[in-house]
Amino acid sequence: MKKLRYLLLLLVYITGSPLTTMAGDVPSSDPQPKYIFLFIGDGMGLAHVSMAEALLAERQGKTGIQKLNMSTFPVMTFATTFAKNRYITCSAAAGTALATGEKTSINTIGMDSARIHPLQTIAERAKAKGMKVGIMTTVSIDHATPACFYAHQPDRNRYYEIGTQLLASGFDFFGGGGFKYPTGKKKDRADLYHAVAEQGYTVVKEQKTFDTISAKSLPMMVVNPVLSASSDMPYAMDSIQGSFSLSGIVKKAIEVLDNPKGFFMMVEGGKIDWAAHANDAAAIVGEVFELDKAVGYALEFYRKHPDETLIIVTADHETGGLSLGWAGTSYESDFTLLDRQKVSGEVFDAKIEAYKKRTPASMVRYDSVMRMIATDFGLGTDIKLSKYEEEQLRRAFRISISGEKESLYKDENTVLYDNYDPIGITARKILANKAGIDFTTWMHTGTPVPVRVIGSGQELFNGFLDNTDIPVNIIRLLRLQAIKQ
Amino acid sequence: MKKLRYLLLLLVYITGSPLTTMAGDVPSSDPQPKYIFLFIGDGMGLAHVSMAEALLAERQGKTGIQKLNMSTFPVMTFATTFAKNRYITCSAAAGTALATGEKTSINTIGMDSARIHPLQTIAERAKAKGMKVGIMTTVSIDHATPACFYAHQPDRNRYYEIGTQLLASGFDFFGGGGFKYPTGKKKDRADLYHAVAEQGYTVVKEQKTFDTISAKSLPMMVVNPVLSASSDMPYAMDSIQGSFSLSGIVKKAIEVLDNPKGFFMMVEGGKIDWAAHANDAAAIVGEVFELDKAVGYALEFYRKHPDETLIIVTADHETGGLSLGWAGTSYESDFTLLDRQKVSGEVFDAKIEAYKKRTPASMVRYDSVMRMIATDFGLGTDIKLSKYEEEQLRRAFRISISGEKESLYKDENTVLYDNYDPIGITARKILANKAGIDFTTWMHTGTPVPVRVIGSGQELFNGFLDNTDIPVNIIRLLRLQAIKQ
Repeated sequence: MKKLRYLLLLLVYITGSPLTTMAGDVPSSDPQPKYIFLFIGDGMGLAHVSMAEALLAERQGKTGIQKLNMSTFPVMTFATTFAKNRYITCSAAAGTALATGEKTSINTIGMDSARIHPLQTIAERAKAKGMKVGIMTTVSIDHATPACFYAHQPDRNRYYEIGTQLLASGFDFFGGGGFKYPTGKKKDRADLYHAVAEQGYTVVKEQKTFDTISAKSLPMMVVNPVLSASSDMPYAMDSIQGSFSLSGIVKKAIEVLDNPKGFFMMVEGGKIDWAAHANDAAAIVGEVFELDKAVGYALEFYRKHPDETLIIVTADHETGGLSLGWAGTSYESDFTLLDRQKVSGEVFDAKIEAYKKRTPASMVRYDSVMRMIATDFGLGTDIKLSKYEEEQLRRAFRISISGEKESLYKDENTVLYDNYDPIGITARKILANKAGIDFTTWMHTGTPVPVRVIGSGQELFNGFLDNTDIPVNIIRLLRLQAIKQ
Repeated sequence: MKKLRYLLLLLVYITGSPLTTMAGDVPSSDPQPKYIFLFIGDGMGLAHVSMAEALLAERQGKTGIQKLNMSTFPVMTFATTFAKNRYITCSAAAGTALATGEKTSINTIGMDSARIHPLQTIAERAKAKGMKVGIMTTVSIDHATPACFYAHQPDRNRYYEIGTQLLASGFDFFGGGGFKYPTGKKKDRADLYHAVAEQGYTVVKEQKTFDTISAKSLPMMVVNPVLSASSDMPYAMDSIQGSFSLSGIVKKAIEVLDNPKGFFMMVEGGKIDWAAHANDAAAIVGEVFELDKAVGYALEFYRKHPDETLIIVTADHETGGLSLGWAGTSYESDFTLLDRQKVSGEVFDAKIEAYKKRTPASMVRYDSVMRMIATDFGLGTDIKLSKYEEEQLRRAFRISISGEKESLYKDENTVLYDNYDPIGITARKILANKAGIDFTTWMHTGTPVPVRVIGSGQELFNGFLDNTDIPVNIIRLLRLQAIKQ
C-alpha cells in the first residue's frame, strides 16, 4: 500500500501539479475562496490580544492564556506597517496599504503618495466582480480605515467628501458608526443620510428595523442608534442601553450578504486604537473581546463553508506601545485588576468634565474626585495606593482643576498627560501599572502587527509579511481584475 | 492530463496518506531533518529585532526595514512563554520549557515544577541517539538558558553543581562564556576547567588554538579569551580586542560538528536580555546583529543541506517591554541616533564608577560627567537636550554622586533607576527616547515571542505556539526516544 502511494505521488508529480503550496507562489490549482473576511483591529498589537487572553485565564484562576477565537487560527505571522514617508504609520496610509496593496503617504486615503492618482481597492474590485461588499466599523463610517476601502481623498479629514464617495461606491452594506459631519463641517451641505436613502439604501437606525432586515433590504446602512458627537459607537465595556454591538452587526451582515457569488467584508475594531491612544487598558480589552466575538461569527460561517471561506485578522498598526510588564511590579501581574474599572476613560473623563462644570472652582475638592476614582477604578479603597501614587493623583488634580500646567515643561506634560485630562489619565495609568502593564506612547508605534489567517488560501500568508502583501494575496486568490475606468 | 491528476489524487487519498501536513499531525512521510539549530535570543521580543531592522534601513536613508537573516524565514509565528507558576517567566523556567517540552516553576533548571524529577532534554536525547551536540552562549556556560539543555537543578543559582553536570553530559561542544564560579562560590571546590580537560575536552582559550581546532579536537570547550567577572563575553558593540564573537564560534561549531549522524546546536544570544534589562537600546541592536550573523552561518549550512536541516530562531521571553514609539517623539523616529552611542551601558557605568572612585567627593563635577555623556552618547553637544532632559540628568547626577535617594519614594526609585547607576540609565533612556523608542520595565514581560523557522519540518511550527511545542516538534522530527535510566 505504501509503495503504491509513492508510485501515485510520483505520477501526480509527473503530471505537473505541485502538491503543496508555498508562500508567494500560486499554481493554477490554487484555492478559490469566495467569502473573504478582513478584520482590522485598529491599533491591535500583539500585546493587546495577549492581555485579553491572559485576563481570561486569570479570571479562572489559571496562569497563562485562554485563547481567543483569532488565536486558534492555523496561520499566524507578522506584518510591517510603515508608510511610504514615515516609519510610524497612520490609519490612512496603513488602511490604503491594506485596501490596495500600495504604500502611500501619511493621511492619504486610497491614493498614491503624491495624492494624484486614485488606487483601486480590493473592495471595489470584488464589487466589480459581482461579489457583495460590506464595510463595518465601531467608529464613524467615514473614518480613515473604512474610508480606505471605498474612497480616494488626499486628506483623511475630508469627511464630507469621503461620505459622498461612500454613496458612489454602490457597496451593499455599511454598518456601525454614522457620518462624522452629515452636512459638512459648516453644516451647509446636503444631508448625507438623506442622500444615502435616496440612493436606495435602507437606513437602519433602530433595533426594531434591525431585527427585521434581510437580504431583500440591501443595499443598507446600519447606523448605531447611540452615537457620540464624532459619530462613533460607545465602548463595549460601557454597555450603553440601546446600542448595537459590532459583533451583532457582523452577524447580521453575514446573514444578508451570503450569496452564491460570494462577499468581501471589512470589519474594523476602530476603538481598540482610541482606547490605546488613551492608555485605557480595560477599554482595550473590552474592544478586543467584541472584535473577537465578531470573528467567532465569521468562524461559524467558515465551518459551514471551509473550502470557500478565508478569514484574516490583523491590525493597521500598533497603538500605545503596550507591554505586558511594568518596572514597578517587576515580575508580577494581576490582570483581574482591570476588571475593577467600571467605565471607559471616555466616560470617566466626561464625568470629571461635568463635575468641573457644575462645581464652582472654590468648591472643587480632591476628596470628591477621589471618590469618583474609587467608584470607577477601585483605587484608594480596596486597591491601596502608595504615597508616590497618591502624589501623582494630587498633582494631576491640581493641574486638571487649576487648568494650569504648573511648573511642567512642555515635553514633560506631553509625556505625562498629552492632551488628556490629567486626572483620568493618571487613574487609568496607575490601575494598568498595578495590573503589571504599561504603555510607552499616546500614539502609534512601528512595531509589526500580528496577522492571523484561517481558510482557503491561508498558506499564502506564511512568512514575514508587509501590510501590502495582504490585499495582494486577496487579489490573487479572488482572481480580482483591475477595473477599467 | 488534469483529469488524470485528479484521479491520481483520489487514489492517493484512498490509500490513506494525507497529502499536506497540518500543524500537530505527523504522518509517516514526515520530514526527517538531522541537523537542528535552535537559536535563542534571550529576551528578544518582536520589537528588538524590528528595531535592528529599522536601523539598518535608516542607515541607508530608507523608511521601513531591512530584513535580517531570521526575518527571511518562511515560517513565522509567536509562542507564549509563561511559567507553570508565574505569567512572566524567567530564563530557567523558559529554558526548561524549550529544552524539555515541559512547563516548570520559576528558577528551576531541567526539573519538574516540584523540583523532584529531572526532565530529559532534547540535547540529551539527541546525544543518546548518536548525534553530536553543541551548546553556545555569550553569557557564562552555566547560565540558566544553556544549563537547561544539560543540567537538572532545583535552583539556577547552583552554578557549580550545574558545571559538574556539564562535565557529566558528554556533549561535544561548549562555547562562549566560561564557568561563573569555576571553584565554587567559596573557591573551595575542584577547578571545573581542570575537570573538563581531564574529561578529555580540548579547552580552547586563545585565538591561535581556536584557528587550528578541527573535528579531531572534539569534545571541546571554547572559552572566550576575554571574560567579565561573571564569565560572560563582552557586548558585541564594545568590540573588545582579543574577544571571540558568537558568530565566529558558531561558524567553527558547524565545521567541527558536521557529521553523518547529524547534530543539535543550541545557540544563545544571552546578552540581548542583559542589555534589555539595562534598557540599553544600542547594545540590544549590537547583540541582535551578532546573533543574526550566527543565524547567517546556519543558513549557509541549510542551503547545502536543505532537506536535512531545520533552523529555529526564537526567544525565551521578552525583556524590557520595548516599543518602537515614545510619547515624547509622537509619530517620529530616528533610529540612527542609536549609532551615536559608542559603548554599552555596562562599559559606561564602569567608567562612571571609576571616575567616582578616583575623584574625591568634593571634586566631582557635573560638567565632567556631562563630558563623558557627550563623548559616549552624543548628548548635550550635537544632540541637543531639552530643559526637562537636562533636569533629569542633573537629578540623576545628584542621586548617583551623593549616594542618597534624595526625596525619592521607593517605588519611584524602582521605576526611575532600579538598581542601575542613575547617570548611565538616564543617559541611555534619553538617547533611546530621542530615537523614538521606550521601555516599560527592567525585567521580563509576558508578551509572546516570535518563532521563526526554516527547513525540513518547518510546517509543524505554523499557528500560535506555546514554548513547549518547540521541543515537542523537534522530538517528533528527530524521532527522539526517552533515555532509559
